[in-house]
Amino acid sequence: MRFVDLIEKKKKGFEHTKEEIQFIVDSLMNGKAEDYQVSAWLMAVYFQGMTIDETANLTKAIINSGETIDLSALHSICPHVADKHSTGGVGDKITLILIPLLAACGVPIAKLSGRGLGHTGGTIDKLESIPGFRTDLEVEELIEKVKDVGLAIGAQTKRLTPADGKLYALRDVTATVDAIPLISSSVVSKKIASGADYVVLDVKYGSGAFIKTPEKACELAQWMVDIAAKLGKKFHAVITSMEQPLGRAVGNAIEVIESIEFLKGVMTPDIKELTYEMAALTLVELGKANSKEEAYQKIQNAIETGAALDCFRKLVKSQNGNPLVVDNYRLFAQPEFAESIYAEKDGYVQNIDAYKTAYACKLLGAGRERKSDPIDYSAGIYLNKIYGERVSRGDVIATLYANDEEKLSLAKEFLKDAFTFSDYEQPQRNLIYKII
Amino acid sequence: MRFVDLIEKKKKGFEHTKEEIQFIVDSLMNGKAEDYQVSAWLMAVYFQGMTIDETANLTKAIINSGETIDLSALHSICPHVADKHSTGGVGDKITLILIPLLAACGVPIAKLSGRGLGHTGGTIDKLESIPGFRTDLEVEELIEKVKDVGLAIGAQTKRLTPADGKLYALRDVTATVDAIPLISSSVVSKKIASGADYVVLDVKYGSGAFIKTPEKACELAQWMVDIAAKLGKKFHAVITSMEQPLGRAVGNAIEVIESIEFLKGVMTPDIKELTYEMAALTLVELGKANSKEEAYQKIQNAIETGAALDCFRKLVKSQNGNPLVVDNYRLFAQPEFAESIYAEKDGYVQNIDAYKTAYACKLLGAGRERKSDPIDYSAGIYLNKIYGERVSRGDVIATLYANDEEKLSLAKEFLKDAFTFSDYEQPQRNLIYKII
Repeated sequence: MRFVDLIEKKKKGFEHTKEEIQFIVDSLMNGKAEDYQVSAWLMAVYFQGMTIDETANLTKAIINSGETIDLSALHSICPHVADKHSTGGVGDKITLILIPLLAACGVPIAKLSGRGLGHTGGTIDKLESIPGFRTDLEVEELIEKVKDVGLAIGAQTKRLTPADGKLYALRDVTATVDAIPLISSSVVSKKIASGADYVVLDVKYGSGAFIKTPEKACELAQWMVDIAAKLGKKFHAVITSMEQPLGRAVGNAIEVIESIEFLKGVMTPDIKELTYEMAALTLVELGKANSKEEAYQKIQNAIETGAALDCFRKLVKSQNGNPLVVDNYRLFAQPEFAESIYAEKDGYVQNIDAYKTAYACKLLGAGRERKSDPIDYSAGIYLNKIYGERVSRGDVIATLYANDEEKLSLAKEFLKDAFTFSDYEQPQRNLIYKII
Repeated sequence: MRFVDLIEKKKKGFEHTKEEIQFIVDSLMNGKAEDYQVSAWLMAVYFQGMTIDETANLTKAIINSGETIDLSALHSICPHVADKHSTGGVGDKITLILIPLLAACGVPIAKLSGRGLGHTGGTIDKLESIPGFRTDLEVEELIEKVKDVGLAIGAQTKRLTPADGKLYALRDVTATVDAIPLISSSVVSKKIASGADYVVLDVKYGSGAFIKTPEKACELAQWMVDIAAKLGKKFHAVITSMEQPLGRAVGNAIEVIESIEFLKGVMTPDIKELTYEMAALTLVELGKANSKEEAYQKIQNAIETGAALDCFRKLVKSQNGNPLVVDNYRLFAQPEFAESIYAEKDGYVQNIDAYKTAYACKLLGAGRERKSDPIDYSAGIYLNKIYGERVSRGDVIATLYANDEEKLSLAKEFLKDAFTFSDYEQPQRNLIYKII
């Protein structure tokens, strides 16, 4: 087999055999294919697509390119190991809320999360904004902690799906990120290699997501569910809008604080809708509830009794973080400067553009451009007013936090521009577009 | 400007500006673009195409990436410097015949030719099968020789269109050779950088060419003519069939011998049709004849008077070759072994598959796979019977020459398979499909 012939085959629109897919991934890993050949193949895949079978074979080959995590030790607690994944959005702190919530409902979670390139850090960065919090857990440690306190969140290692790491690095610099078979195989391979039997996916569309339309998000979601099924795993997907930021906080520490508030019962409707639905899907699928209604009841109980908050506290303590943060937010790193944006007239918030908010947040220093860039945990945005809320002239609608005054005033202009208002009351907004 | 954004732009089907094209070629040359980015861009070009303007800009940028040859010193002899180019075929020795023929008709030619990767060597390899023949001419030497004897043929240097060299090397290993804008810019840039004002192109289609259909060949030809026009140059294109080998000889020395025979007046109809037409187009375009009829008359005279043969002799002598080869073919390297193929029944030659013939020729050692491979000048194929000729059972229809008996018998099987026969007389075959 010659790599150039496989490029030609895909270019002409033919389907690769399982052996050919394996050869492609092997050649990528052992260096027998040159990067310029792989990138040409990726571009051909962008134009010609792949079938579900091809993509499932690619996913399998990516999984087999590295270590896989065996979480079967957790089967004694729960017969199926659950996980969640989001395609990424602005203010997306769902993992921080969902994992303790599920743990409180009897679903143990050993989760691996990533750091982020973007307007804020990833889940791991956010957790590390808690003083002392450790995320560099070995697999044995991860399992031990789950057995001990019911949940653990560690940082993804490069030893899982290294072929995906190589492919993604190439896709990123060759404009071949946005191909559905490539996105699907990347996500599904990582989840399965991480030991999940069941995954609930949050596939986002809109100005703050890399997918712009609900139709495209549904297509991607269906692909991931289908590929997982081909590999013998059950995935659900919740398709949600990312036209506006999720909740009120965008940043790192500030998102952790909003998550803690949520677990204390202070909720924005959008986060509640999404978190409850993802949790309910999981509880029913794993047999921890017989119906959606029962699941919702269990979830509500976990919040009201403080069981979910308690799980969050256990998570922090178990991973060396200071559990006192839960009750004293001053223990997080504090920003030096803050500025508010005020309403210029009376009305209702009609829209807060997620992309512009994200851009402002990055300007504040909450995100990173390159893997080696530092993150300012204390920087971020708080949306005092969100969609549908009434504002009076002079009200604070948003607050920005940073350690650089110049960046702060620049970001303020962008964030101002993100808001639009209406004179009229706004219709109720549903976050979830579809469940697959 | 970032290269990845230009890949994205082309992927989405947009037209590059002149500055963007220049940036792409500059990045390729100064190493600021990685090969994997260039190859992804090339694949995007394969799928999305380029406009004539984009391609003309690419051609110009490729020309400017290296040295260009100034042949204006020849304008005192002829106001426009002419050149020819073939997209490559089996038994294609047209340059060896056309150049002396044009020189004999008063058109001076300073030609740069390539070595070949394929079933035989390129023009330069074929010429080097003449004992002593030198092709490593500096530009001054080339011009000096043309002024002296009216013609010269030198080897292309890497100093011309280096961007094309880099692009082609990448295209070759990433299945992006067959994109019309890329082929066009490659050919046209090389011709213009070599100093030509006027070029007659031979664009081939069929089993022995890389383009399979006449429609596609016409499309490519039209592109090259249009791009050249954008750059202020006049090109003609002759679209010809390469379903069957050109003439009777396929190899290196053996093709030189057939060329000499042609200049002596021993012609196959296909070579005559093509050479005369290309020569006539050139003579009319350059004002050396007032009409096609007058041109054909001049050409016929150049053959009949021996003037064309004399020009060939001068070419050989001027470039240090042994001019005695013209009258004594035993002075070429001789093959150790020869084998013939015999007709199994009476009939007419209906077809000789060019691809299979080429394959057999390569097996004999007449071509090379890698640039560093040696070529066996004496290896080759002689087609004793060609299209339309009557054969009787037991007639020799082809003869193979090689220095390796094993390869010889293997090649014989392939060559046998290239022939098909009919019981009936065959219609006259026209080589030229169209002139653009």
